[in-house]
Amino acid sequence: MNYPKTIINLIDCFKKFPGIGEKSAERMALSTLGMEEDALNLFSKSLKEIKTKIKKCQKCGSLTEEELCEVCRDEKRDHSVICVVEECKNVILFEKIGSFKGIYHVLGGLISPLEGINPEDIHISELLKRIKEEKIKEVILAIKPSVEGETTALYIKKMLESEDVTITKIAHGIPMGADIDYIDPLTLEMAIEDRRQVS
Amino acid sequence: MNYPKTIINLIDCFKKFPGIGEKSAERMALSTLGMEEDALNLFSKSLKEIKTKIKKCQKCGSLTEEELCEVCRDEKRDHSVICVVEECKNVILFEKIGSFKGIYHVLGGLISPLEGINPEDIHISELLKRIKEEKIKEVILAIKPSVEGETTALYIKKMLESEDVTITKIAHGIPMGADIDYIDPLTLEMAIEDRRQVS
Repeated sequence: MNYPKTIINLIDCFKKFPGIGEKSAERMALSTLGMEEDALNLFSKSLKEIKTKIKKCQKCGSLTEEELCEVCRDEKRDHSVICVVEECKNVILFEKIGSFKGIYHVLGGLISPLEGINPEDIHISELLKRIKEEKIKEVILAIKPSVEGETTALYIKKMLESEDVTITKIAHGIPMGADIDYIDPLTLEMAIEDRRQVS
Repeated sequence: MNYPKTIINLIDCFKKFPGIGEKSAERMALSTLGMEEDALNLFSKSLKEIKTKIKKCQKCGSLTEEELCEVCRDEKRDHSVICVVEECKNVILFEKIGSFKGIYHVLGGLISPLEGINPEDIHISELLKRIKEEKIKEVILAIKPSVEGETTALYIKKMLESEDVTITKIAHGIPMGADIDYIDPLTLEMAIEDRRQVS
């Protein structure tokens, strides 16, 4: 005997998610038995709608249910400052802070020759097109400081050399509230290099 | 800006599962974007069917899509030996080994005065009824050796005192392949107490 077919199907579905193994999938599938019907119906409906309702913003590439995302549609924002991020979820992170008033561009990945991800596989050409067509004054590179991140940042910088646009990158340094004793040497080096005059 | 409504709904649904926090839920919801439509439809369908198709076996309480589960329907099994387990998933565990040929009884929990779970909240009366009505010769208690498990085992033993039935419990001792150096003292004590003559 094994689980009934419906439960086996559910376990297989949960196993497809990142970080979910056999045991967790079983636990999650069995816990649906204790959930309310309304909750399960909403879950079921949302899963169905993912493919039909969710689109990528035609301008910046972040997730939306319209043609353009909320940020790109907002006339009050500064459309001359563009923040370049790796993934859609980074946009939400910055939006949660609420202090950035410019617009975004989602690359959808980082250049990684080892994994076979080349510049043409991510949305760099779309970025260049936007910089040429929209009146962009500043490009902020908000990409993580990994090998792939640095490669991507360097590539974008090189492609923009001939354009009349300021390129900046977000600061790397000591996180707020962190004990300086426990910071790795590379971060410390960055923090000294990027020091600012106390005003 | 936040995620589109459909994604927020999905994140909220995933958060309801055991062991899934805000970040994992977000990760899982976003990863559905990269899944195939067929997989999502099967997932959606299975979730809907959980409440309609899955029932508890009227005899033993394990999960089934019929009136009786596969084990209870199987005439070839030994219906005089009943293995008492805490949860439905324990039945599947024992069935995976494949060597146990008796039938099961799922308690659906363990007695726990601290959590307000009394004997009448779990399926003990159903077990007593089965022992009286079906010709049960042996009751195997396959319950975990925790405080709640021991309490439940003692209670069942007491309730069955007047019945003509053998009560056994699964052996507690050193797991196969384990290094004896790393076994906790309680397990070692159990292993010595439950020692068997080498035949």
